Amino acid sequence: HVDWDLSAAEKGGYDWFMRKEIYEQPRAVADTLLGRYDENSRLVLDEIRISENELRSIDKIVIIACGTAFYAGMVAKYAIEHWTRIPCEVELASEFRYRDPIVGPTTLVVAISQSGETADTLMAIRHAQEQKARVLAVCNTNGSTIPREADAVIYTHAGPEIGVASTKGFLTQLVACYLLGLYLAQVRGTKFGDEIAATMAELQAMPAAITEVLEAIEPVLDLAGEFADAPSVLFLGRHVGYPVALEGALKLKELAYIHAEGFAAGELKHGPIALLEEALPVFAVVPPKGRDQLHAKVLSNLQEVRARGARTIVLAEHDDTDVVPYADVLIRLPRVSTLLQPLVATVPLQVFACELATRKGHDVDQPRNLAKSVTVE
Amino acid sequence: HVDWDLSAAEKGGYDWFMRKEIYEQPRAVADTLLGRYDENSRLVLDEIRISENELRSIDKIVIIACGTAFYAGMVAKYAIEHWTRIPCEVELASEFRYRDPIVGPTTLVVAISQSGETADTLMAIRHAQEQKARVLAVCNTNGSTIPREADAVIYTHAGPEIGVASTKGFLTQLVACYLLGLYLAQVRGTKFGDEIAATMAELQAMPAAITEVLEAIEPVLDLAGEFADAPSVLFLGRHVGYPVALEGALKLKELAYIHAEGFAAGELKHGPIALLEEALPVFAVVPPKGRDQLHAKVLSNLQEVRARGARTIVLAEHDDTDVVPYADVLIRLPRVSTLLQPLVATVPLQVFACELATRKGHDVDQPRNLAKSVTVE
Repeated sequence: HVDWDLSAAEKGGYDWFMRKEIYEQPRAVADTLLGRYDENSRLVLDEIRISENELRSIDKIVIIACGTAFYAGMVAKYAIEHWTRIPCEVELASEFRYRDPIVGPTTLVVAISQSGETADTLMAIRHAQEQKARVLAVCNTNGSTIPREADAVIYTHAGPEIGVASTKGFLTQLVACYLLGLYLAQVRGTKFGDEIAATMAELQAMPAAITEVLEAIEPVLDLAGEFADAPSVLFLGRHVGYPVALEGALKLKELAYIHAEGFAAGELKHGPIALLEEALPVFAVVPPKGRDQLHAKVLSNLQEVRARGARTIVLAEHDDTDVVPYADVLIRLPRVSTLLQPLVATVPLQVFACELATRKGHDVDQPRNLAKSVTVE
Repeated sequence: HVDWDLSAAEKGGYDWFMRKEIYEQPRAVADTLLGRYDENSRLVLDEIRISENELRSIDKIVIIACGTAFYAGMVAKYAIEHWTRIPCEVELASEFRYRDPIVGPTTLVVAISQSGETADTLMAIRHAQEQKARVLAVCNTNGSTIPREADAVIYTHAGPEIGVASTKGFLTQLVACYLLGLYLAQVRGTKFGDEIAATMAELQAMPAAITEVLEAIEPVLDLAGEFADAPSVLFLGRHVGYPVALEGALKLKELAYIHAEGFAAGELKHGPIALLEEALPVFAVVPPKGRDQLHAKVLSNLQEVRARGARTIVLAEHDDTDVVPYADVLIRLPRVSTLLQPLVATVPLQVFACELATRKGHDVDQPRNLAKSVTVE
C-alpha cells in the first residue's frame, strides 16, 4: 500500500511524526524568528493590522487558548507583563465564553491556536469582538478561520504538525508570544532599544540551545525505560517553570495515559505533598540562579520531596551545582535567562513522554480519544 | 489517658473531626451570614476599614490564596465580576510574589486564609502593600497575622477547624466572598437593592440546602465503598463548577493519596480525554439549567465520557431529568442559582473523600505529610 511508504518517507527516518517534530524544533524556532527584526533594529510584525496608536491605548491583555496553547499563554503572561507592564490575564477559551468576561475597546485579546480552527477559541474571539476588543491571533495555519477573523496575526512557522500531541507548535507559540511582548514594549517605549536587542539576540541563540538539549538527550531515553511502569509522575515548577511542568504532565497524559500532574511548586504543601511516597518520580524545573529567591525556593521544595522518599528528576542549568544534593537524576539545560527557559526546559519532557509511550507500545502519533484540532465545542 | 477522652468528646460522637466539621457546615454558613444585613436592607461588613469612597475608586481586584482557599477565590472571581463588573484576577500566593505583579493604589487585594498565618499569603500582601494596594483579608482566626496587617477583614465564623483538610473553612470562605461581592455592588451601585436582597435571601436559605444534601448523603457513602480501590478519580466542572471539581480532587489527594484531578470540562478534548477508560470514575458537576448553554455543554461532555466506557457520577439539580441518560450514578442537589451552587455541590465531594479515606484505613484528620496551616514558605 502506497500510503504507508509515503508516510514513512515523510517521517524522514523517524518512527513517529512526533519524534521528527521534536527534532525539527531548532529549525521551527529559527523560522518563526526569521524576518521579524529589520536592519534598523526594529521589530516588524507585518501581519499586525492594528495601528501603533491603538496598541498604545491598550490597557489590558486577555490571552485565550486551550490545552497546550494555554500553557504557552501562561508563559506569555509573565513575559508580557514584565516587559510592558500591561496587565495580562490568561483564560481557557471554554471558560471565557460562559462567564461575563470584562473586555472592551482597549482590551487586546490574544488567541493562540496551532490549527486556527479550535472551536472554543473561535467562539471566544467572536464574543470578544462583539464587545469591541481588538483580537490578535497566534496561529500556525495560513488562512485558517481564527487568523481570518482576527484584526492581526502572528504566524508561527513551525511547518505542518502531524503528531497529535503538540511539540514544535508549542515552542513556536512561545516564540510568537515573546515577539509580541517585545513588539508591544517597543511601540509603547517600556523597553529601550538595546534591551530589546539583547533579548532578540538571546532568542536568536535559542535554536542552538535547543539543539544542545537534543544532543544530550540520551539520559532521558534511559529514564523513560526506567519509569515505563510508573503509575504516577509529578511535575513541579515555579514562575515560567510552572506552565512547563503542566505541559510536561499533559504530554504524558496524552501519550502514556497515566496519572501525570503538574503543580506550582509553592502549592505542594497545600495538599499535593500528601501524594508523595517512596520511589514516586517527581520532575522539577529549576529556574536559573538570579537576583531573586526563585532558585532557592525550588531547592527547598526539592528537599521536601526528597525527604518523603520520592525520586527527583531535576532540570537545571549546566553549571548549577547547588541542585546536586537534591537530584536523583540531573538533566542539564543550557544557560538562558529565566523568561526564555521554557524553550529549553520543555524539550526533555516532550522526549520523555514520547519515549515512555513508545515503551508502553502506544501509538504516539494517534493517542486514543484525541483529535489533532478540536473543531467542535 | 485523658486526652483521648477529651478528643472523643470534642468530636461530638463523630469518628473524625473532619466528619464533624462537614456536618457543622449549615451552622458555620449561618454564623458567617449573621449580622451582615441590617434592618434597612443594607449590607454591613463592619470590619472594613476602607472608606466607601476608596472602594468606589477600585479598578481591579486581585485575590491571593493557596490550596483550598485558592478555589474559593476562583468562585469569588465569577461572582464579583458578575455583580460588580470590576475585573478580578486570582493568583496563587506563591506565584504572585515572584512575578512582578501589577498592583497599585486602585487595586484591592483580597487575601483568603483560614488560619490567617499562611506564609506565602502573608508575604504576598506585604508585597502588595508596598505597592500601595489596599488589602482585605478573609480569615477564620481572630487576631491572626494576616487580618492584623490588612486594611480590612471579613471574618468567617466557621469556629475552630481541626481536620487538616478544610471543609467548613472552605464553605464559609465562599460565603465571605459572596458577601464581599454584594457589598461592593451595593457601594458602587452596580446592583439594585432588591437584587441584592434577593441574593441575600438565597444565601440565608443555604444552611437548609446544605442540610438537605447531608440528609441524603447515604448513596455517597456507598460510592466511597465501591470506589475504595480505584487508582484514579477525575472531576469535571465548568464555570463555578470548575473550582468545585478542583476542590473535590484536592480533598481526595489529601486524604486518600490517590490520583484525583479536576478539569475544566471544556479542556477534556484538549488532552485529558486520553485518560478515559473502562470503569474510571468521573464526577461531573452539572450547573443548573439557565438561560445560557452551560448546562447543555456539560451534558455533551458527559456523553463523551460515557462513550469511552468511564463511569459517570453526576451531581445535578433534583429535577434535572436531562442528565439521567448520562449518569451511572446520580447525586441530587437542591435547586439554587448557578453562582451559589458551589455551596451545595462541594459537600458530597467532601463526604466522598472522607469516607473513601476511612475505608482505606487512613487517618483522615492527620493526612500524611500535611500541616493544618503552612506557616513556612
